[in-house]
Amino acid sequence: MNRRVILKGRPQGIPLAEHFELDSAPLRALDDGQILVRNHYLSVDPAMRGWLSDAQSYGARIEVGDVMRAFAVGEIVESRNESFVPGERVMGLFGWQEYACVDPQSVLLRIDEHDFPISLSLGVLGLNGIAAYFGLMDACAPKAGETVVVSTAAGAVGSCVGQMARNLGCRVIGIAGGPEKCKLCIDEFGYDDVLDYKHEPDLASAIARACPDGVDVYFDNTAGPISDAVIRHISAGARIAICGTASISSWDPWPTGPRYERHLLVKRATVRGFIALDYVDRYPEAVARLGRWIKEGRLRYREEILEGIEQAPSAISRLYTGENQGKLLIRLPASRG
Amino acid sequence: MNRRVILKGRPQGIPLAEHFELDSAPLRALDDGQILVRNHYLSVDPAMRGWLSDAQSYGARIEVGDVMRAFAVGEIVESRNESFVPGERVMGLFGWQEYACVDPQSVLLRIDEHDFPISLSLGVLGLNGIAAYFGLMDACAPKAGETVVVSTAAGAVGSCVGQMARNLGCRVIGIAGGPEKCKLCIDEFGYDDVLDYKHEPDLASAIARACPDGVDVYFDNTAGPISDAVIRHISAGARIAICGTASISSWDPWPTGPRYERHLLVKRATVRGFIALDYVDRYPEAVARLGRWIKEGRLRYREEILEGIEQAPSAISRLYTGENQGKLLIRLPASRG
Repeated sequence: MNRRVILKGRPQGIPLAEHFELDSAPLRALDDGQILVRNHYLSVDPAMRGWLSDAQSYGARIEVGDVMRAFAVGEIVESRNESFVPGERVMGLFGWQEYACVDPQSVLLRIDEHDFPISLSLGVLGLNGIAAYFGLMDACAPKAGETVVVSTAAGAVGSCVGQMARNLGCRVIGIAGGPEKCKLCIDEFGYDDVLDYKHEPDLASAIARACPDGVDVYFDNTAGPISDAVIRHISAGARIAICGTASISSWDPWPTGPRYERHLLVKRATVRGFIALDYVDRYPEAVARLGRWIKEGRLRYREEILEGIEQAPSAISRLYTGENQGKLLIRLPASRG
Repeated sequence: MNRRVILKGRPQGIPLAEHFELDSAPLRALDDGQILVRNHYLSVDPAMRGWLSDAQSYGARIEVGDVMRAFAVGEIVESRNESFVPGERVMGLFGWQEYACVDPQSVLLRIDEHDFPISLSLGVLGLNGIAAYFGLMDACAPKAGETVVVSTAAGAVGSCVGQMARNLGCRVIGIAGGPEKCKLCIDEFGYDDVLDYKHEPDLASAIARACPDGVDVYFDNTAGPISDAVIRHISAGARIAICGTASISSWDPWPTGPRYERHLLVKRATVRGFIALDYVDRYPEAVARLGRWIKEGRLRYREEILEGIEQAPSAISRLYTGENQGKLLIRLPASRG
C-alpha cells in the first residue's frame, strides 16, 4: 500500500491542511519503461501555491483528486527501464507519496555524488541551489566587485545566491524580514550587509545608503514593494533576475505598481524571468560547482525537517508565515534507518 | 556669424517654440584637436524631451542658455585634427546651429557611403535605423517564423524594425494610431497586420487574435497601456526591447500600471532597455546592413523635411501630435545647392 497526499479542494490563496487528505492505495504494476521510486524526503516549495492556483503558472494545474505534485528524493526499488537500476538515487517530480511509479522524464537529477546527505538534493544541491546558480550565473552574470542585492536573503534560494555572489567576489546585500533572519544573513551566510524590510521605515533610502554605487545585480524572490525599492537604485547596465514573487498574494487580477519602463531604458537594464526546470540538461554542471563550494566550507545551508507524510498538508503555509528557516522537508520513516 | 537655437526656458511637458530663441554669435577659433562642421540637416527627435526634462534621463541635462543639443549631419569645413579632413561628411551631436565647433568625440558616424542622400544619416542610416538594428538584433534576436510586434509601427524607428523583422522571415504586427498610419504600415512598410490603438475597443483581444501563437518579440516604443496589452500575450521565452516610452507624458512621479513580474517569470521572458548611443563602436556594421537592404528595395523610409533653422523650435511638438510622418528634419539653406 502507498500512502499519498491528495488534493481535496482548491485553495484560494495559501494552501492549508484542509485542502488535502491522506489516503492509501495499492501500488500498481510498472508499465514498460517505468521505474518505482521509494521516496526518502518530500519537498515543500513556494512553487506549489502556483501549481494549485487557478491563475496561469508554469506546469499544468493540479486537479482535485490528484496526488499533490512535489519534488522528492528517493531510491529506485524496481525498474522496467534499462537506463535505471534498483538502488540508484534520484530526485524528481515524484509527488507527496511514499512510492512513485513514474516515467523516466519525471527524474530531474540522478544523484551520483554520495558524500552528501540525500536531502541536499532537494535543497542546496537540488532545485534551490540550481535555481540560485542559473539565475545568478546565466541571468545576471555578476562580476567581481559588483553590488548584488538578494531578496528573501535567508531563504533556501536566497541564502545560496548570496553566498555564491560573495564567492565570486561581489559585495552582497540581503533583504530579509525580522531580526532573526537578518542575523542569520550576516553570521551564517556572510552577507556584507542586510536590510530588514519589516522594520526599515524607508527601504528605498536604506538601499541607497547600503549601495552607494547602485545595484548592479538584483536577484528577486519577492516582487512587489521590495522590488520597487531596489529597482529605484539600479546602476547602468543592471541585471535583474525574477525567480519568485513571494510578496504578492494574488495575481488575479494583476496588482498595480510603479511602471519601470523608463527606468529600465535609462539604465539600460535587463529583467529576466527564469525557471530552473528549463535548465535540466545543465543540472550536473550546477551540482558539481555547488558541491565543491560545500566541501570547501563556502556554501552553507539550513534544513528544517518535519517527520512523516502526515506533516505535509500543513507545511506549505509555514513558508508564508516566516516561521521556517531553511529548506523545508518531510522525512518519511522508511528513510530513518 | 553662426545662427543657433538657444534654450530660453525649461519646458514642463512637451517642448514648444516659446521655450527656445534664435540668436547669432560669431564663430570662435578651433582649439587643437577640434573640427568645424557646417550642418546640412538638423534632427528632431523624441529623445529631446528627455534631455530637456528635470527628470533623470540619459545624457546630461541641457541648461537654459545652451545651444539645443541635437543630432545633425554636415561637412567638415575646417580641421585641427589629423584624423579628419575638410570635405568629409559626418553625423554627430552638433546641435541646432549652422556651424558646430566640436571635439572629435561629438562625431558619432563618419559617412563613407556616398550613394545615399546625406539626410539618411539622421534617419534610416542614422540613429533611427541603428536603434532599430541593435534593439531588434541584440536585445530580441528574432528567428524566422517568430511573431514580432512593433509599437509606433509607422514611425522612424518602428517602420525600420518592422521591415527588418520581415526581411528576417518573421511575421510582423504593427501597432499605430489612426487609419493613415495603419495604411502606411501595410502598403509601404509591408507589415503582415496592423492594429489601430486609437480605434480598437479592446487592444489586448485584438493582439490575441492577430498573434494566435503569442508574441515572441515586442519592440516597444511607447510603454504604458499599449505595452500592457501586448505583454499579456507574450509567448514562453519572449524578448521585449524598450526603445522609447512615447505614450507616457510624465515620469515624475512614476506612473502606475499592472505589475509584470509574475508574467515575466511564468513566460521566462526578458525585458531589456537599450540606448543606441551605447553601440557607437558597432555603428558601421548596422549602417552596412541597412544600406544593403535599402539598395535591394527591402527597406523603405519616409522623411518630413522643414526648411530653415527658424522651424526648429516648434518642431519637437509635431512628434507628439501624431501629425508628422517619417523622420523629421530641418534643412539648412546652405545645403540646398
